[in-house]
Amino acid sequence: MDKNVGVIGLGAMGAGMAASLRRAGLRVHVFDVRQPAVADFARDGGVGCASPAEMAAHCDVIVSVVVDARQTESVLFGENGCAAAMKAGSVFVMCSTVDPKWSAGIEERLLAKGVHYLDAPISGGAARAAKGEITMMTAGRPQAYAAAGGVLDAMAAKVYRLGDRAGAGSKVKVINQLLAGVHIAAAAEAMALGLREGVDAAALYEVITHSAGNSWMFENRMPHVLAADYTPLSAVDIFVKDLGLVLDLARSSKFPLPLSSTAHQMFMQASSAGFGREDDSAVIKIFPGIELPGKAQ
Amino acid sequence: MDKNVGVIGLGAMGAGMAASLRRAGLRVHVFDVRQPAVADFARDGGVGCASPAEMAAHCDVIVSVVVDARQTESVLFGENGCAAAMKAGSVFVMCSTVDPKWSAGIEERLLAKGVHYLDAPISGGAARAAKGEITMMTAGRPQAYAAAGGVLDAMAAKVYRLGDRAGAGSKVKVINQLLAGVHIAAAAEAMALGLREGVDAAALYEVITHSAGNSWMFENRMPHVLAADYTPLSAVDIFVKDLGLVLDLARSSKFPLPLSSTAHQMFMQASSAGFGREDDSAVIKIFPGIELPGKAQ
Repeated sequence: MDKNVGVIGLGAMGAGMAASLRRAGLRVHVFDVRQPAVADFARDGGVGCASPAEMAAHCDVIVSVVVDARQTESVLFGENGCAAAMKAGSVFVMCSTVDPKWSAGIEERLLAKGVHYLDAPISGGAARAAKGEITMMTAGRPQAYAAAGGVLDAMAAKVYRLGDRAGAGSKVKVINQLLAGVHIAAAAEAMALGLREGVDAAALYEVITHSAGNSWMFENRMPHVLAADYTPLSAVDIFVKDLGLVLDLARSSKFPLPLSSTAHQMFMQASSAGFGREDDSAVIKIFPGIELPGKAQ
Repeated sequence: MDKNVGVIGLGAMGAGMAASLRRAGLRVHVFDVRQPAVADFARDGGVGCASPAEMAAHCDVIVSVVVDARQTESVLFGENGCAAAMKAGSVFVMCSTVDPKWSAGIEERLLAKGVHYLDAPISGGAARAAKGEITMMTAGRPQAYAAAGGVLDAMAAKVYRLGDRAGAGSKVKVINQLLAGVHIAAAAEAMALGLREGVDAAALYEVITHSAGNSWMFENRMPHVLAADYTPLSAVDIFVKDLGLVLDLARSSKFPLPLSSTAHQMFMQASSAGFGREDDSAVIKIFPGIELPGKAQ
């Protein structure tokens, strides 16, 4: 594929996705507010951009992997944003976790300029991003998929097409985050009860991961607790935000979510206690009266 | 193994475990309050017993797979119970989900009669029980394991040894049920939100089971909702009981469990609404304002 593709946001996910695109033979242009990250990528064979607007002059596909809706708005419509500079017929691929209605609104605004839009939140973690094996939960018009060409498949092991209007991908992503957030908080609650009851934590992990109580998140996050390593791969504050999106979505149709609201309170309690920037497994620190495993000496 | 083994309780799990023991070449004696179940098993090559006491006269190992602590007490100490009839040096293997302290108390009572005891709750479901591939979460004295000989391995793919006193197995089982119960309720909550938002339920199932929001229970139970088949493999009222055990355990040391208590309320709401004997996935019926998938025509 002899194509110019832009990636905005070189965090844990975006950096891996940009690397996967370059490995697929594409010419990859990158932008991040942290200029050293841009320089590093350019040194390895990519093209650094000074702004989203500059990127838009060169690329027919722009993949945005920033933190949230506010940053996406800034990338598109802020100072030196790309929306005004994108060519007619090019496509903006929005990979953040956002309110589905907001995503549908962005589709309208870009269509009015002749620019295509894909609602395309992602899942899978940094390791799978680096291997080009993320999951994408996408929705958009057929013309938007056509404009993206092989770019999605170059980053993803699975590209789900969930509807022909923006929003359907974001809805499924928000529901995935409901489960992910509740499962992390439940894993913490279960491990905390085990510690309270004097159960050996490593044995508990071994049994649960071979039993019906297992979840993707229990298996993935509880090793951080066992190793006392709360380096943030994904932070507590991400789930304060994402479970907030879950609750906002449900509130807009007055729909009750008892477990999501409880888990949201647990993450906010962890954040208020000062653990917001630690790994999301640090939600276990809200439980009093237990001694967590210490760092190996 | 030329050994006489007894199995009390021929429900979904017990029937499979008894069949696995017979397949391993053991002489298997069975008892159930439902005499037709006993007659069926005897016709296929087992030995039917009229009471737990009669079984105790023939068997050195008795495996109890009844619903709860109350039924176990009845099997052991009720009319024609086995405790008084068991030979010194024989072993009682307790597979129900129970209060760990209660299990430790039974160990003491049987030891006083010279009878060994294993605290040995199980996980895995009926299909794995039939194949001899359950998981056992066991604890007990070395002499109790010796008395059980190869019987545990003939029923189980994994036999975890979690301590040398009864109770440690039951603690891990109770914590497994915490996760299992919260995960079923979370799966229902997520699926309910998807239906509320007009997401295609089958597509949602497909995406979640390939994403970080997956759990063993989501993957196993949500097909019942998609097929509108609430035939109880495990019923709502089982989780009313098991999450009750979880909360009792934590309450005894005044330990807070926000998600478990919320999930327990959801299962009680489902039971009060008349769904207690339906499959536990019927907890989704507590959500108003959605249309669940109907039965295929």
